Amino acid sequence: MNVVKLIDKKRSGKALNKQELTYLVDGFVAGEIPDYQMSAFLMAVTINGFSDREVIAFTDVLVKSGKQLSFDEKMVDKHSTGGVGDKTTLIIAPIVAALGMKMVKMSGRGLGHTGGTVDKLMAIQNMQLNLPEDKIKKSISEIGVCLLQQSAEIAPADKMLYQLRDVTATTESIPLIASSIMCKKIASGAKIIVIDIKVGKGAFLKTQKEGRALAQLLQKIAKRYHIKLTCVLSRMDEPLGINIGNGLEVMESLSFLNGDYDDKLYDLVVALSSHLLVDYQNISHLEAQEQVKEVISNKEALNAFFAIIENQEGRIKKVKISRKNMVVKSVKSGYIKKIDALQMGQLVQQLGAGRLKANDKIDLGVGVVLLKKSGDYVKEGETLLKVYYGKNKISNSEFLKCYHFANNKTQPPKSIIAII
Amino acid sequence: MNVVKLIDKKRSGKALNKQELTYLVDGFVAGEIPDYQMSAFLMAVTINGFSDREVIAFTDVLVKSGKQLSFDEKMVDKHSTGGVGDKTTLIIAPIVAALGMKMVKMSGRGLGHTGGTVDKLMAIQNMQLNLPEDKIKKSISEIGVCLLQQSAEIAPADKMLYQLRDVTATTESIPLIASSIMCKKIASGAKIIVIDIKVGKGAFLKTQKEGRALAQLLQKIAKRYHIKLTCVLSRMDEPLGINIGNGLEVMESLSFLNGDYDDKLYDLVVALSSHLLVDYQNISHLEAQEQVKEVISNKEALNAFFAIIENQEGRIKKVKISRKNMVVKSVKSGYIKKIDALQMGQLVQQLGAGRLKANDKIDLGVGVVLLKKSGDYVKEGETLLKVYYGKNKISNSEFLKCYHFANNKTQPPKSIIAII
Repeated sequence: MNVVKLIDKKRSGKALNKQELTYLVDGFVAGEIPDYQMSAFLMAVTINGFSDREVIAFTDVLVKSGKQLSFDEKMVDKHSTGGVGDKTTLIIAPIVAALGMKMVKMSGRGLGHTGGTVDKLMAIQNMQLNLPEDKIKKSISEIGVCLLQQSAEIAPADKMLYQLRDVTATTESIPLIASSIMCKKIASGAKIIVIDIKVGKGAFLKTQKEGRALAQLLQKIAKRYHIKLTCVLSRMDEPLGINIGNGLEVMESLSFLNGDYDDKLYDLVVALSSHLLVDYQNISHLEAQEQVKEVISNKEALNAFFAIIENQEGRIKKVKISRKNMVVKSVKSGYIKKIDALQMGQLVQQLGAGRLKANDKIDLGVGVVLLKKSGDYVKEGETLLKVYYGKNKISNSEFLKCYHFANNKTQPPKSIIAII
Repeated sequence: MNVVKLIDKKRSGKALNKQELTYLVDGFVAGEIPDYQMSAFLMAVTINGFSDREVIAFTDVLVKSGKQLSFDEKMVDKHSTGGVGDKTTLIIAPIVAALGMKMVKMSGRGLGHTGGTVDKLMAIQNMQLNLPEDKIKKSISEIGVCLLQQSAEIAPADKMLYQLRDVTATTESIPLIASSIMCKKIASGAKIIVIDIKVGKGAFLKTQKEGRALAQLLQKIAKRYHIKLTCVLSRMDEPLGINIGNGLEVMESLSFLNGDYDDKLYDLVVALSSHLLVDYQNISHLEAQEQVKEVISNKEALNAFFAIIENQEGRIKKVKISRKNMVVKSVKSGYIKKIDALQMGQLVQQLGAGRLKANDKIDLGVGVVLLKKSGDYVKEGETLLKVYYGKNKISNSEFLKCYHFANNKTQPPKSIIAII
């Protein structure tokens, strides 16, 4: 096969068959097809798209580029397309365990203005995120859940492609996003999956239309693999919950499971967890919701949280939080109409909580705690947020730019848009 | 500026300003922007296009990436987008000299199934194609014309970009083709230019529509630089002339100037040369045609051919032609309807006359001589073509596949489609 002809096929809007996609991806992984050819191909895909058939074939090629796990148990999994303050994995993992479901959750590191679960877990002292296979199997049978760093052995082609997409403006392709999400879930053996598709200013996907298109494509891939998938379309215009920053988000998760939670975060956690349970137990959604709420209120999920962390040698009493902090006060009075998730996420990243490039070092202890949320009335001089900083300090005025005020109280929209 | 954001701008169909294009091209030339980012950008341009304003800005950036020549004389230039058997430069250069016009013709090497003028000239023993500046000036004043290898100092960015485009399926972009052609002409100081835009199966551009679009874009760039440009749209479905292969095409050029020519090649040569003369002398096209025909028939152009080659130390009596040859005979009787230029060009390339990759070694002595052309009647067993081969031999049946027969004589279409 001729690489240039294959790229040209996609450039001119034609579809590639599975053999051709295999040739491209395998050649790229083997180092035989250089990155400049692959990036041209990825740009052609980003602009001209993939047919459903191509997406399914491409996903399969990615799955087969690495190891495929299989378990005796019916494994569940969850995924989020990423947002600001999104600590749902930290909260849902213990709920899953408390409800008797089984999950090997592999997560990535953060990039850009959105955080990554691995970074958050790393803020817990001594937390082990790379476990040997026997330990994983043992954890599943004893605890029900383990939290791991995405294995380099699972869909390695996807990782290589993602690194290239990240620097060539080819990340915003619905088919490439769909295949990237699904290949890792398929290779890690999940049978019941819930995916939180975030849309809005602080998310990767800006519009509901894109979110729905992604959900439909994910469903098509899932169907082919006999996976039960639920997509939850949720808003990411404002930060999720109260805390943003790695250690701070661990602390919010602890508070949440202790009964002190932000309502929107609670709604989302219950939705994501209950949809897993619906498919796991073949019960009604109402019944599933009740069970989820029950393990939160009776602290079984909190105990599962401790158990999961202890099982992976983490010390929950030693979570990294920066000692240096300051407060930002409002310079006007009024109702908060909106806190801009993208701007706030970028400021927290600039504090040192996130990476601009893949190899940047980050500060797990920095971040912000939002003391006022949209819909709240704030008086001039009242504290809006608390900033935990490290080496980098950001002026109050920068934080104030994230806040939009209104004279009248406006009801902020619900966080969940649709279940697809 | 952020490279990924600039690539993304083009990906999403927006226009880049001159500052942004300069940043991208200069960064690429300086090695600061890696090839995988540039290839993604080039693919986005190939699919989403450039506005007229962008093409003009991009061309200017390419021009400024290297040296810009200037001459006291009003310089002319010609260019062909490339075809099979296209030896027009070899024939037009002496016509230009015989008519008293001045031309520093810089040419490239062949790539793919189309030949390159530099390779053809290299088949002349000892021909010098890299002359020092003073020798170039002296040649212009004494001989009128010199034939050079494209200087690495002229628009180096274009050369780097072309190498990348060639391996990333981003060659078929009208704006990129237009800027690539014009930047070299502008930088080498030409004021009157004729461009032979070839369309058809054996050409780079497959359709007349593409050819016309290129012509219009070239005219827009030329206008901005106060260059008088004529575009000749010509057919490249069949090989041009009789001989294909480097040394063989030099020999055909000699025969042509000696009065023994293929009619279609003659028409094209007269058209291209006369349009230069129209703008050079401000005369009518009819008058210009007469003058061109005159210097061919009175052998002044032939003498200029010898003078040009002698001036550059070439030995016209020593042109490389392979000693090994064979004939291919027809296996049926009938009228030749068509000889496929693309297939024939690829066979000649496989004989060793052309390159698949930029660094491939080629055999300057191999090629074919077409003894029968479309419109001719051929009897079974009659010789169709003579093959000059070297290391690689190709079976007769492969050559026979290039021929399409008809029961009745059909008039092959004229080679010139339009003057734009």
